Amino acid sequence: MPTYKAPVDDTLFLLNDVLHFERYGNLRGFGDATPDVLAQILGEAGKICEEVLQPLNRVGDEQGCVRRDDGSVATPKGFKQAYDAFVDGGWGGLSVPPEYDGQGLPYTLAVVMNEYASSANMAFAMYPGLTQGALAALLRHGSEEQKRLFVPPMAAGRWTGTMNLTEPQCGTDLGLLTTRATPLEDGSYAITGTKIFISAGEHDLSENIIHLVLARIDGAPAGVKGISLFIAPKINVAADGSLTDRNKIRCGSIEHKMGIHGNATCVMNYEGAKGFLVGEPNRGLNAMFVMMNEARLGVAVQGLAQSEVAYQNALAYAKERLQGRAPSGAKNANGPADPIIVHPDVRRNLMEIKAFNEAARGLALSAALDSDIAHRSEDAKARQAAEDRLGLLTPVLKGVLTDLGFESAVKAQQIYGGHGYIEETGVEQFVRDARIAMIYEGANGIQALDLVGRKLPKDNGRAAVAFFAEVNEFIARESANDEMKAFVEPLKTALGDLQKATIWLMQNALGKPDNGAGASYDYMHLFGRVALGYIWARIARAALEKKREAQGDGAWFDAKLTTGKFYMEKLLPETSFRLARITAGADTMMSLPVESF
Amino acid sequence: MPTYKAPVDDTLFLLNDVLHFERYGNLRGFGDATPDVLAQILGEAGKICEEVLQPLNRVGDEQGCVRRDDGSVATPKGFKQAYDAFVDGGWGGLSVPPEYDGQGLPYTLAVVMNEYASSANMAFAMYPGLTQGALAALLRHGSEEQKRLFVPPMAAGRWTGTMNLTEPQCGTDLGLLTTRATPLEDGSYAITGTKIFISAGEHDLSENIIHLVLARIDGAPAGVKGISLFIAPKINVAADGSLTDRNKIRCGSIEHKMGIHGNATCVMNYEGAKGFLVGEPNRGLNAMFVMMNEARLGVAVQGLAQSEVAYQNALAYAKERLQGRAPSGAKNANGPADPIIVHPDVRRNLMEIKAFNEAARGLALSAALDSDIAHRSEDAKARQAAEDRLGLLTPVLKGVLTDLGFESAVKAQQIYGGHGYIEETGVEQFVRDARIAMIYEGANGIQALDLVGRKLPKDNGRAAVAFFAEVNEFIARESANDEMKAFVEPLKTALGDLQKATIWLMQNALGKPDNGAGASYDYMHLFGRVALGYIWARIARAALEKKREAQGDGAWFDAKLTTGKFYMEKLLPETSFRLARITAGADTMMSLPVESF
Repeated sequence: MPTYKAPVDDTLFLLNDVLHFERYGNLRGFGDATPDVLAQILGEAGKICEEVLQPLNRVGDEQGCVRRDDGSVATPKGFKQAYDAFVDGGWGGLSVPPEYDGQGLPYTLAVVMNEYASSANMAFAMYPGLTQGALAALLRHGSEEQKRLFVPPMAAGRWTGTMNLTEPQCGTDLGLLTTRATPLEDGSYAITGTKIFISAGEHDLSENIIHLVLARIDGAPAGVKGISLFIAPKINVAADGSLTDRNKIRCGSIEHKMGIHGNATCVMNYEGAKGFLVGEPNRGLNAMFVMMNEARLGVAVQGLAQSEVAYQNALAYAKERLQGRAPSGAKNANGPADPIIVHPDVRRNLMEIKAFNEAARGLALSAALDSDIAHRSEDAKARQAAEDRLGLLTPVLKGVLTDLGFESAVKAQQIYGGHGYIEETGVEQFVRDARIAMIYEGANGIQALDLVGRKLPKDNGRAAVAFFAEVNEFIARESANDEMKAFVEPLKTALGDLQKATIWLMQNALGKPDNGAGASYDYMHLFGRVALGYIWARIARAALEKKREAQGDGAWFDAKLTTGKFYMEKLLPETSFRLARITAGADTMMSLPVESF
Repeated sequence: MPTYKAPVDDTLFLLNDVLHFERYGNLRGFGDATPDVLAQILGEAGKICEEVLQPLNRVGDEQGCVRRDDGSVATPKGFKQAYDAFVDGGWGGLSVPPEYDGQGLPYTLAVVMNEYASSANMAFAMYPGLTQGALAALLRHGSEEQKRLFVPPMAAGRWTGTMNLTEPQCGTDLGLLTTRATPLEDGSYAITGTKIFISAGEHDLSENIIHLVLARIDGAPAGVKGISLFIAPKINVAADGSLTDRNKIRCGSIEHKMGIHGNATCVMNYEGAKGFLVGEPNRGLNAMFVMMNEARLGVAVQGLAQSEVAYQNALAYAKERLQGRAPSGAKNANGPADPIIVHPDVRRNLMEIKAFNEAARGLALSAALDSDIAHRSEDAKARQAAEDRLGLLTPVLKGVLTDLGFESAVKAQQIYGGHGYIEETGVEQFVRDARIAMIYEGANGIQALDLVGRKLPKDNGRAAVAFFAEVNEFIARESANDEMKAFVEPLKTALGDLQKATIWLMQNALGKPDNGAGASYDYMHLFGRVALGYIWARIARAALEKKREAQGDGAWFDAKLTTGKFYMEKLLPETSFRLARITAGADTMMSLPVESF
């Protein structure tokens, strides 16, 4: 059976020593998050994930969710008790403002909790995770009345939330959306239509479910400019917050999926359901877009989370399984064979996963901190810089962390040999669960298009220019530091590849959009390798400093330096291959007639 | 529901025009395989796979196999009828010599059938597939009496076969094997022990199951030099071939696996079962190794097969699903949106799979032909050259075709967006089924070690030197051909990378085996990219020639040239990245203390 231990030490090192959390004490909610408090909160977060959520991960996979004939959905055995424990701990409202009964702590901590919970039990973590997404939309776009009515019970976890976008005929292309919203005399709307792939759309964990639904008000313009956002509660809510009658929303069926069996993926039928407009009419997509950075970062973290838990289990197996002898001579001469971690190729797999995990965590926390700065800083310049960087890096993180997170899970499974293919071992579940993160919340191809088509050219490339300048400044600052040479030089080469690719796009994609779209996936991965390399260089910088302070007891920091060096030597050089693919252009692949495929 | 169409035209093009099958008419069994006969056989092979095996693929996945309390195993509904149709068609004995009631046709055709059947229904195809493996071992190492007794009913499909190697404590490291064989007075042995992960170990498709079992004769030396190979029939067989009493072999349980649910993966308990020594005592591993080229090629083809069927279905979806507009302007202006194949990134995925499939098929058939030459040619030099090349390329094909086949299935799934994650669509099954091919028959890390540690240095590198010379000669021959420039130049660069990597290994791995083992996986993939590039160049050469002959109707050949060019531009450049990883060496990853992971 798989196990899980939350990487609290690594998170604390990243927050305190790499990202210098204490420098943000002036941000709302950060004053309370001293290093001691951080350690305590993360310790508690780890504990509930390890002890309550993780033991239910296999159960959830095996049992899945069951829809009853009346449209209600039963979650796997134990999920309800675990959910109660989760919300009793206050984890649902961690970063919600205190005026709506939340704890008002940094959003960054909610991202940490999301990582731990997703490692422990991804299907479970999605129930509170989707509530976070719905909360973010409500807090940003809801009226004061809507916030007062809906946010406190959602922050408390008594109610959960969902996002209803996809319909059978439209996923990526929301312009094709047909769900209707007919205005009623009381100012509300009657919503009619079918939504599919609605995660946590129906379940038995909470008293109520608040659906956020995209629909088209009667007479609205066609396409994406005629889409509005609505609140539609599963059970209607009186002005005093009490629950009244059942709304006309029904789970029509649940999907049988490759993974995340413990989360109900629902077809939701709206049959004249009561709904309330959020924000302005026909501006629903904008409302959605604003909150997408956070939702996409949440999915990026799921990629990391599956990689981390897969790593931990594969590592334990590699230390325990005896098979063959080390090429350099027996390491366990008295035993029947050596533990397989002595084999260089097993080690290579472990190192690749480890080198990804630690940098991915750093990147995700850095992005989360940017989100906090963007929302909480009183310095307009700092806000803009953070928002720019977050906007630029969000598609990179979503695309790259989920792609590589899945690859990590596959590598971890490989370490198990035949045992990795057996359900009982648990590692194949990580592969199946990780797979969805590459698809939902905008498939990774869409992330790549968002990066190249929107984020890169936005504001005349301001965000990208600033990011390149930031990395260049780091390189310049550290280039005289001999200890940093193994990090700075490869980073410089890789940044050069990224800049060359960016210039190629400017020169070749404007007049020929197929070149931009055709190169987008490689560009996203090239960008990701550089971003991971940059955070590795920052981690190395911090590790060198802390190692000096540690005076002798530096093994933990040495491991960081070795792992980072491995990244620089073995993984970062992929940038030149990506550059070659990009500059090869799209002509050949676009020239094949459809009928010749 | 997924569909499948056997790529008969592509196979025939490869056999006739790229590999020039007609030149081998002097080999045993090849004289009958004229182009017309080939077309007819492959047409029939495709038909049964499309019409009988493919419709049972989802059924097999959903139902799986069921072990009853008495140890018997029921295969999914319909498998028995399909199996009867399969053996009635003579497909089980296609390449078995006529003197043992087979059809004596080229082994290459059996490889084609394996591809089609594995695309249609991989779990099903494993039942006759494992029989092929057992047949190969018996034909090569069995006594004349054993061959007369066991081969004809296996060739006819009335009996099936299995391979019993793995035990709970030993997979890769067969030296740890503990299953015992105690000599009996009648010259047979009593076999006792537990074997795990035995594919097709028990089922209801055939009258009898012939297990080939590795065991240690009492008093044999420890390690791999004390292992012998035995025949142990499920039901004992009298001298006249009639079935007598039940042998003491029992399926103890079946595994619940990530995929290939339709094939029973059994724990087999041997409780003093009657067994017959095959070949010499203590030489069992050698007997196994000799037949491994074919078994590994069979698994390599499974990787291609899943990639092919995943491609066909993703392509159909990409032509049908309407979403968004082409970046270069609407292509389906009267419809609500364009088919997603217009999107460059969707096309990129499809092209990557297609460019892999067509070359992988060429490589697999080329290797199969080498196997035929090695076994059937009367020219000793030709036999040795073919054996050398087959031995060298087998680990490359097994490792690279299964890794890339799995990646293809993942890419195909991605094209479906959220629909690809739903079981009903069927594409996620291809991902789950394809995953095992990277693991069994020697995990891909073991293939890489076999390549670098055994095949490369064997006979002072004779096979590798010959392969490099062959590719170089092709390059030299075609370098003046302008039409071939887009193929020859990238191939030259890639071959240069492979040769540099080989020299690096010679200089750095001999004294430091960790460098060899640590680089092995990258070297295998580097070799694979070059081998795929080489066959693409040969395909292009043939396509150019056939296009000239076709006079005008050259669209089919143009597609080949475009797809090959795409391979050269986008996929082959990976060789330089692999070279960089190899030459970075293993020092960094080996330096991390185990406790620091």
